[in-house]
Amino acid sequence: MTELNDTTIDAFRAQLTRGECEDLAWWHACQARIEAFEADVQAWEYLKPLTSTAILPYPGQLLRGVPVGIKDIIDTADMPTTWGTGGYLVSPGAVVDAAVVTLLKRQGAMLLGKTVSTEFAYFTPGKTRNPQDLSRTPGGSSSGSAAAVAAGMVPLALGTQTAGSIIRPASYCGVFGFKPTVNTVSFSGIKAFAPSMDTLGWFARHIEDICTTFTALTRSDVIKVLPDLGGIRVGLRNLPGDGPLDLDVEQALSSTARRLEQAGAKVFALPLDSRYDALVMHHQVVLAYEAAQTLASEFQQHGEEMGARLVELIEQGLATSYADYRVSLLAAEQCKQALSRVFADEVDVILAASAPGVAPAGLHATGDPVYCRAWTLLGVPCLNLPLSKGQDGLPVGVQLIADRWQDEQLLSIARTLINALGMQ
Amino acid sequence: MTELNDTTIDAFRAQLTRGECEDLAWWHACQARIEAFEADVQAWEYLKPLTSTAILPYPGQLLRGVPVGIKDIIDTADMPTTWGTGGYLVSPGAVVDAAVVTLLKRQGAMLLGKTVSTEFAYFTPGKTRNPQDLSRTPGGSSSGSAAAVAAGMVPLALGTQTAGSIIRPASYCGVFGFKPTVNTVSFSGIKAFAPSMDTLGWFARHIEDICTTFTALTRSDVIKVLPDLGGIRVGLRNLPGDGPLDLDVEQALSSTARRLEQAGAKVFALPLDSRYDALVMHHQVVLAYEAAQTLASEFQQHGEEMGARLVELIEQGLATSYADYRVSLLAAEQCKQALSRVFADEVDVILAASAPGVAPAGLHATGDPVYCRAWTLLGVPCLNLPLSKGQDGLPVGVQLIADRWQDEQLLSIARTLINALGMQ
Repeated sequence: MTELNDTTIDAFRAQLTRGECEDLAWWHACQARIEAFEADVQAWEYLKPLTSTAILPYPGQLLRGVPVGIKDIIDTADMPTTWGTGGYLVSPGAVVDAAVVTLLKRQGAMLLGKTVSTEFAYFTPGKTRNPQDLSRTPGGSSSGSAAAVAAGMVPLALGTQTAGSIIRPASYCGVFGFKPTVNTVSFSGIKAFAPSMDTLGWFARHIEDICTTFTALTRSDVIKVLPDLGGIRVGLRNLPGDGPLDLDVEQALSSTARRLEQAGAKVFALPLDSRYDALVMHHQVVLAYEAAQTLASEFQQHGEEMGARLVELIEQGLATSYADYRVSLLAAEQCKQALSRVFADEVDVILAASAPGVAPAGLHATGDPVYCRAWTLLGVPCLNLPLSKGQDGLPVGVQLIADRWQDEQLLSIARTLINALGMQ
Repeated sequence: MTELNDTTIDAFRAQLTRGECEDLAWWHACQARIEAFEADVQAWEYLKPLTSTAILPYPGQLLRGVPVGIKDIIDTADMPTTWGTGGYLVSPGAVVDAAVVTLLKRQGAMLLGKTVSTEFAYFTPGKTRNPQDLSRTPGGSSSGSAAAVAAGMVPLALGTQTAGSIIRPASYCGVFGFKPTVNTVSFSGIKAFAPSMDTLGWFARHIEDICTTFTALTRSDVIKVLPDLGGIRVGLRNLPGDGPLDLDVEQALSSTARRLEQAGAKVFALPLDSRYDALVMHHQVVLAYEAAQTLASEFQQHGEEMGARLVELIEQGLATSYADYRVSLLAAEQCKQALSRVFADEVDVILAASAPGVAPAGLHATGDPVYCRAWTLLGVPCLNLPLSKGQDGLPVGVQLIADRWQDEQLLSIARTLINALGMQ
């Protein structure tokens, strides 16, 4: 990679301000990288030609000149959308961009193109390969976004998560992946799947870029770097918590715990009762019921062309009663309230597994979101930390989790940790 | 009206089953009514030609042959959508129908056309007039749906509510209007405005039709008629509760309270502390912040053409900080939790004003949603009961409200009340 491919958003903006480079410099660096690696990685569904009107003129843009990849379930007016269908459902261009696309453009971002998604952001894989090992899946459903960021093709890419579609591919590809509190950034113009859980998020190679994007999209304050993590309480708990962990994951958790302690945090096992483990099951009920409703039109018209696992989920949803759906939603709500009390009284963040292990071999499946399901149902913000490697040298991430609407504290703790590790 | 114009969905289905009429009979009765009254009422943005493939073949359809009006912010593949913009943003036809459109079609419903919406379901009025008095507003934003149902042009029409866009026009037009618990029916393919509050609902002239539609869309059990309302606790409380009520509204509330008591219910003033009154203000903060995000693309491209009140709201949203937005969301969440305890311990339903009075004169505005804002922010199910008239003979409704996910109990109580009044 060139120096520019590996710069941060804030550093690039400083260069622009000092007149040391041009608006399109990063865009050109990304194009070169795409030309070199796209044949192997296949992260892109559509690449956009450069236009002179690429950057909207607004004052104080935080993302000026930053190339961004847009997951292909997100509406764009000047690019086609295929929703990962491989062509059985295609829009040549939406009436308007999805809301987040305009929010990015106002901040000066440049759209590079649309990144590969699994079918409707569920399990049927697209063509993308893991840049860390081309014989392995990048994870899903935000496959192209995670892979493009990992391959240095783009510094920032949008993803969505309804089960584990940001955290898992971030873990498999070795990048930061952030799922904010549910409903933080508008989902308008993005294909819904299970609306009570669908969440927009993003991938980057630098924690600062995750933070700057949060600030840009919410127009909130700059995320602070703390002097150290003294006084920060970290609770270790996976959901589900039963069953033995993969050795790679166990080592990633313990090495991250050690690093947090070295930065001053107190790390301890967090006891949560078995209601929380049941959330994995409740997630599946909510996912199936809502997907069967939400994709009703697509299923009606294209059920014959849909992948087998999606059909199976929709059929499960059609067989799920409203009463059972409500039971699962109310169970989730009880845990949300209880977990808020845990966050208020016992811990600042939770440290948990991102995925069951390193990226599985093969491109026929995208791995298991099991360690993300409960957190996504709870609507809490989750951040994949790409700090560890498994025994075979492949990335294995862990996630930090905070209470709903504590995104700024979560990002501040992560930024401080990375800073303490000297990784910036 | 002919007998068919005033039948119920269940009665029509029974006629169909007995072979006493044809699938298209109700459709033709509606067409005749539209021909007679549309020039005056102007409820429709688009009327659909009859096609031979109008009814999807599915077994056990609850809405077979039922003509339905679709609010013009809801995507349709074979009808244009204008989002109440008067033409500055138009889709000739969506890639797929909104999810709810397919859910209706599967149940055998026939789409009559698209009903007039205010601009993006906010305040800028469309052309529709109140069928009860053509010099008055039908209310908004679901103006055409409420008016078309009130005029007998259609037995059932879809609306959406983010502030008071179902309950208020139902009150002004004198029909039942139901806003279920937020997120009960998928909003996929419907233009979002403030996603944490946007809720799909429907209008009908008969409580049974409200109930049958709920059963059809959620695939839940038939809503029961109770023997009486003995043991049912009804709490009287408006949000906001300060300030004197319009005499018409006060009389509508007290006459409904009397009717509830006659059916066996216990009605009493419900004390709720001032945090609940503050929800009206928090609603405005959430509405503005989310609308500014969600309509970012529309504002970017068509801000110059937008109505003044929408521009004002978006500018308010752009000036609202993420921190203030979060404060309002968390205040709402605290009240949601507290209100659930009130519903568990003290009341079964709440009785409250639907609107500040009868439909205001003139077509330049759609009235004030103030008495709906807090309930919509709380996500609770609300049902307008069209049981009263004001001093000048115009309708004035009241709403019954239950806890989130207690929609079936709410509808059951309302159905029992209407049954006891001998109004079926």
